[in-house]
Amino acid sequence: MIFVLRPDATEAQIEHLLGRIRELGLTPHISRGVERTIIGAIGDERVLREQPLDAIPGVEEVLPILKPYKLASREFRHENTIIHVNKISIGGVKIQIAAGPCSVETSEQIITTAKAVKAAGASILRGGAFKPRTSPYSFQGLGEEGLKLLDEARKETGLPVITEVMDTRDVELVERYADMFQVGARNMQNFNLLKEIGMSKKPVLLKRGLSATLEETLMSAEYIMSKGNYNVILCERGIRTFEKWTRNTLDLCAVPILKHHSHLPVFVDPSHGVGVWRWV
Amino acid sequence: MIFVLRPDATEAQIEHLLGRIRELGLTPHISRGVERTIIGAIGDERVLREQPLDAIPGVEEVLPILKPYKLASREFRHENTIIHVNKISIGGVKIQIAAGPCSVETSEQIITTAKAVKAAGASILRGGAFKPRTSPYSFQGLGEEGLKLLDEARKETGLPVITEVMDTRDVELVERYADMFQVGARNMQNFNLLKEIGMSKKPVLLKRGLSATLEETLMSAEYIMSKGNYNVILCERGIRTFEKWTRNTLDLCAVPILKHHSHLPVFVDPSHGVGVWRWV
Amino acid sequence: MIFVLRPDATEAQIEHLLGRIRELGLTPHISRGVERTIIGAIGDERVLREQPLDAIPGVEEVLPILKPYKLASREFRHENTIIHVNKISIGGVKIQIAAGPCSVETSEQIITTAKAVKAAGASILRGGAFKPRTSPYSFQGLGEEGLKLLDEARKETGLPVITEVMDTRDVELVERYADMFQVGARNMQNFNLLKEIGMSKKPVLLKRGLSATLEETLMSAEYIMSKGNYNVILCERGIRTFEKWTRNTLDLCAVPILKHHSHLPVFVDPSHGVGVWRWV
Amino acid sequence: MIFVLRPDATEAQIEHLLGRIRELGLTPHISRGVERTIIGAIGDERVLREQPLDAIPGVEEVLPILKPYKLASREFRHENTIIHVNKISIGGVKIQIAAGPCSVETSEQIITTAKAVKAAGASILRGGAFKPRTSPYSFQGLGEEGLKLLDEARKETGLPVITEVMDTRDVELVERYADMFQVGARNMQNFNLLKEIGMSKKPVLLKRGLSATLEETLMSAEYIMSKGNYNVILCERGIRTFEKWTRNTLDLCAVPILKHHSHLPVFVDPSHGVGVWRWV
Repeated sequence: MIFVLRPDATEAQIEHLLGRIRELGLTPHISRGVERTIIGAIGDERVLREQPLDAIPGVEEVLPILKPYKLASREFRHENTIIHVNKISIGGVKIQIAAGPCSVETSEQIITTAKAVKAAGASILRGGAFKPRTSPYSFQGLGEEGLKLLDEARKETGLPVITEVMDTRDVELVERYADMFQVGARNMQNFNLLKEIGMSKKPVLLKRGLSATLEETLMSAEYIMSKGNYNVILCERGIRTFEKWTRNTLDLCAVPILKHHSHLPVFVDPSHGVGVWRWV
Repeated sequence: MIFVLRPDATEAQIEHLLGRIRELGLTPHISRGVERTIIGAIGDERVLREQPLDAIPGVEEVLPILKPYKLASREFRHENTIIHVNKISIGGVKIQIAAGPCSVETSEQIITTAKAVKAAGASILRGGAFKPRTSPYSFQGLGEEGLKLLDEARKETGLPVITEVMDTRDVELVERYADMFQVGARNMQNFNLLKEIGMSKKPVLLKRGLSATLEETLMSAEYIMSKGNYNVILCERGIRTFEKWTRNTLDLCAVPILKHHSHLPVFVDPSHGVGVWRWV
Repeated sequence: MIFVLRPDATEAQIEHLLGRIRELGLTPHISRGVERTIIGAIGDERVLREQPLDAIPGVEEVLPILKPYKLASREFRHENTIIHVNKISIGGVKIQIAAGPCSVETSEQIITTAKAVKAAGASILRGGAFKPRTSPYSFQGLGEEGLKLLDEARKETGLPVITEVMDTRDVELVERYADMFQVGARNMQNFNLLKEIGMSKKPVLLKRGLSATLEETLMSAEYIMSKGNYNVILCERGIRTFEKWTRNTLDLCAVPILKHHSHLPVFVDPSHGVGVWRWV
Repeated sequence: MIFVLRPDATEAQIEHLLGRIRELGLTPHISRGVERTIIGAIGDERVLREQPLDAIPGVEEVLPILKPYKLASREFRHENTIIHVNKISIGGVKIQIAAGPCSVETSEQIITTAKAVKAAGASILRGGAFKPRTSPYSFQGLGEEGLKLLDEARKETGLPVITEVMDTRDVELVERYADMFQVGARNMQNFNLLKEIGMSKKPVLLKRGLSATLEETLMSAEYIMSKGNYNVILCERGIRTFEKWTRNTLDLCAVPILKHHSHLPVFVDPSHGVGVWRWV
């Protein structure tokens, strides 16, 4: 962590800051430049992230050096993580495709769709039993009944099944039926949900929130991993911007950058990025 | 709901669309212009909001006319809603101020702060017992122990207490101790949490999400109200933008616009908008 | 154009609005629904775009129906536009690649680079003689001297040359040397510059502004085209968002949507979207 | 400037970087921590801002320490700058209000408005003779004729006049008629225009661009000041965000932060932030 001092910082303020840094368990290194004095604080700065250090008198700016995530970082694990779901591998050379309806509605609907999904070459069936809807007056999903229909479709096709979980109280239920959990964009920072899923061993598809930075996305993965579940797949699905001709702005460049900083697999969900099928 | 047709829409497509509109329980009105034909669909369009109507062949655009929220709208209730918490009124002429620490830490800390808050003229004590933190390695709050300390501070000062609830499983617990629930920005679209709080009668401070539109904020209020709890206070606390000199961009103009569209009280939380105390 | 009336609009207000619509040269069609009355105004609404129609008493919202651009639209010209620069064709089946240094610096630099660019298979040489720099203390480009060096490189390699023009006073000068104009993101709404370039016949690469919607990008193309220069190539190069791990957020989905709405060719400039070469 | 090295940076890479820093005229200070080595570069880093230093092998991140603007900074001038326009002072205790129509249209219109503006207590008359319009088909302003009408209104009321200049070729003309230049949001990074205005002595109202950071706004002020014109007034007028119920999002917190970092006066233009008159 680097502290940039104000040009008018007094010696007393500098002494006070050096003392605070030592109290926090770090070692200060002072460097006096022509226009600014800077103080480096050597040691593990991660626990200090939410301390209001820039409110210390004489401090102009605090620049973190270490990344706030550990287990999700490429430094922690150099090789790509490969996650196994039944017979398929996610994160290796082969690109896996998940497909299926927004909501599970009827037995016929999900089985017909599952067969078509398989015939078209996809390897995972997705479908929502619990649906996050902006309006309380919209259909909210079939709940456990929907999970049972997904189970039927899995038996019929052999495809592993991914479905969203939205409530800490439903994690156990969803775990009984699904092969993979999906955490939706709106719940990416529902930290209690992340911790609860972290206590399972089932793979998790973690969608980036509408206004989440890539760093925050990795921090949410870190939440799940810090509870013991290392089977996290990141998912870029578009962020919210001023542009209104698309529903979200798909940030495709997120993929190489996430792969640079993290060993976790990355999925892309263009369906929310733009109704591509409508335009092309 | 208004359907704008493509310039090359065929008569067969128009007929099909008229049929679909009638099936959905609405009455179509057709109007043929020089460059475009448009079809108005008269009736309650709210339930159709999440139907993929713009995928119907020949349709260029679908323009909704009615607002998707009802109970939260100024049309539903013309006068300002006033919410009573113990002896104070929120939403009337007097501006109420809530203040307190980010986290409840110790008995001494919260009682000293509560007395200072009261002496400074604030009328509500806030303090977090459950804390949503970006990092799993940061302090997550004292939980029930924190709620008990808030209760102590309330007894000592007479100030009503507001505190955040993050998990559907904690709603009952928080309700026992708090005078008002707080829903944080990250949980503004945690719909199950909203429904659970909607079954209580205690007032709720609903914070706008980091990337939530004002319409979506009203839809989240609608979730709570649709379960029977009409005591919702909206809170503008800044949105996420490209600007980095402030933590969030406080959207102050949200206040008159929310008051125009809704009868609910509105709070402003500038503390996340900018570290005002640091700059002024 | 459709006027949605407030639920409490009076008959006098409706009469006044009908009169205003007729004054503006359009024909009103009234349609009374259960919750709202709407009035369609038939005729060419484009000239009314900047009239404050939503300030008319009784009006809740004004919804435009027609697109504000004409010449740039797919309706104006159904087939893809193909633009010829020397021997190459832009907008056809073959993807053309432009490459070169940010700034033209020396004869040796630009000629060496131009040869490398050609050897690598690119078909257009780019290089800046006039540089828009955030800081007045940064190198601002070589000006006409840089244009002469581009001319040398063209003679040496046969590659057509594209370079940025930033000032209405330089359009004639740049036109003498360049095969294509480049309008940078910061000047996308420098309307006088667009008009000046519109009076040339040379092809123009028009970069999307950092906060420009796709509709505004097409409106800037319309500016150039309305002066007679139809040789406009659109360029998606990323928009500004909250994400800071990339310089801009490359909005790749802009490509199919622009092609859907417009007949103009589209380039993609990923170099500003992210330093891809650093990450992959 | 601080260079954070990659954990796997080699000694050869470190040596190379130390050499480069010295070549650039700065003095390197190395500091080896447990997880990262960092190198501080002491000296004037401003000219290095656009060097691709983070592409040097072994470098993970480059953190600038000094602010990129000088003349506009509070460090350069500690007291608030006060700008005199005829008899009024901008930047002092008294708040000055500029008002007037969007476009100057007729003699009667501007004189009637100017009198009303004065009667209402405003001290500056604004009105557009050159109008930046999104559509080439909209009214573009009266040009010099409009400037003459502003001159008439000034003579009639004694109010100083502010008007927009959009083209380097019009700076001299506008200077002859106006008491203050206005640089619109779309031209905030039209650097040639800024330089041209910098050669005048007349005060300039510099509007923040739709997607400009506050730092970039100060850099644009720096452009004008670097040419000798220190009479710059900053103007916060809203930024572009995802929110669509307001035209722009007025970033009111920009005011204290700009005043913290700069000695220049700051105006606020809420008219683009939201149609306040419509909602309240």
